[in-house]
Amino acid sequence: MKFGILTVGNEVVKGRTVNTNASEISRSLIENGHEVVYVVTCRDEPGDICKSLKFLMENCDSIVSSGGLGPTIDDITIQSIAKCLNLKMEVNEEAIKILADKYSSLNLTMTEERKKMAMMPEGASIIKNDVGTAPGMVLNYEGRFVFSIPGVPKEMRQMLKEIIKITGRGKLNYISREIKIEGIMESSFAPYIRKISEETGKGVFVKSHPESMEFSNPILIIEVYGYSENEKELEETVNRCLKEINNYAIKLNGRIKE
Amino acid sequence: MKFGILTVGNEVVKGRTVNTNASEISRSLIENGHEVVYVVTCRDEPGDICKSLKFLMENCDSIVSSGGLGPTIDDITIQSIAKCLNLKMEVNEEAIKILADKYSSLNLTMTEERKKMAMMPEGASIIKNDVGTAPGMVLNYEGRFVFSIPGVPKEMRQMLKEIIKITGRGKLNYISREIKIEGIMESSFAPYIRKISEETGKGVFVKSHPESMEFSNPILIIEVYGYSENEKELEETVNRCLKEINNYAIKLNGRIKE
Repeated sequence: MKFGILTVGNEVVKGRTVNTNASEISRSLIENGHEVVYVVTCRDEPGDICKSLKFLMENCDSIVSSGGLGPTIDDITIQSIAKCLNLKMEVNEEAIKILADKYSSLNLTMTEERKKMAMMPEGASIIKNDVGTAPGMVLNYEGRFVFSIPGVPKEMRQMLKEIIKITGRGKLNYISREIKIEGIMESSFAPYIRKISEETGKGVFVKSHPESMEFSNPILIIEVYGYSENEKELEETVNRCLKEINNYAIKLNGRIKE
Repeated sequence: MKFGILTVGNEVVKGRTVNTNASEISRSLIENGHEVVYVVTCRDEPGDICKSLKFLMENCDSIVSSGGLGPTIDDITIQSIAKCLNLKMEVNEEAIKILADKYSSLNLTMTEERKKMAMMPEGASIIKNDVGTAPGMVLNYEGRFVFSIPGVPKEMRQMLKEIIKITGRGKLNYISREIKIEGIMESSFAPYIRKISEETGKGVFVKSHPESMEFSNPILIIEVYGYSENEKELEETVNRCLKEINNYAIKLNGRIKE
């Protein structure tokens, strides 16, 4: 399944918060056999959320959104998704019960702000929040999953596990290996990367990530990774690439570091 | 000017690399009087780059893209932008001279991979790369700036300064202040945030960032920030909000931490 990730929050767009959530969600989806093709980050604005969601729905099979699920006035992700998809918002009976139980155990009443977290689009199922408060949700919309989970990392992580349970494991195996080479410029190694890339075929990538400057003690991390339904074949291709990289690096007087 | 940020790279989409570039670019644009409204991250695929660029061009005044400018076969951001905007690629005379000088000073010839970094869309101006190799570029396209700079953080940072020189300072002043409060649940503080938010008017935001769990020793960071052409008025509004937050926190028996 091709996923799009939508991270919602002014604090992420304006760079106050580095988007570690997108990385964690992506890694988890990929490790579980799915693909991730886009990440969109937008402000807590209904129109922006809707435009981002539509862009992702046009280009992905399913969407995981993170952020904007709390009790405050600016937490509007779920209601914005509902409005965008023309779905009515309603009190989710399961969610309201969980929230009422949590707050009443502390002798706290259900204020408007607390009830707000139990409002879900019609047809949504909730994803329980075992470490925090606001429940997440999943919609089955025109054959797609649309997930919405909180932005607080601890809560996001717990719900990510639930997302994987709901989607099931995807068909793809993912393998990634890296080699660190000192003393070869990226531009000098580039023709060999092209050569290896042309031979690997679809689904396997050879990427150089320069760790320092081209002209003074160049350090390259060469990453070989791939996606395939056939794990054994993938493993073999990745290993063959690594061996070739190793050979070319030695030929060019590079020093393999790890 | 409303900016969109496009970060290109499989390694960012798949979560190998956390997108610190987007945060740094955003902060720099905002500190220099601009707004940032979307961040899109896509793979090193021409079609994905084009779709992302079009989405951002529909919704922003100008675009800063980062990543995909090196000498390897997968560095295709500039040529993908050119194709997407129907612009011919040509050898940029200034770029080829700089690159030839750099490599010849090391007795290295201009290979295809090195020449590739001097290919730019017609009408583009280059942004010099003082710390690395691949030059960046800026296009003036239908009244918008379309910037493309490298993804290597050191190189990105240097070029970001050039971007600010080219765009000039925007009209907006930006102020952000934070208060840390212990002992008040986000849902308990939410009504006060709504009340303060309703009084501040457009352009000033009061946001709670929960730092721990709602039910056990809650810690809230309340951020007050805003954008305005009138710096003095903005400063006054932000200070008034901070004072109110302080008062409400004390009223609710919260402990102000900083």
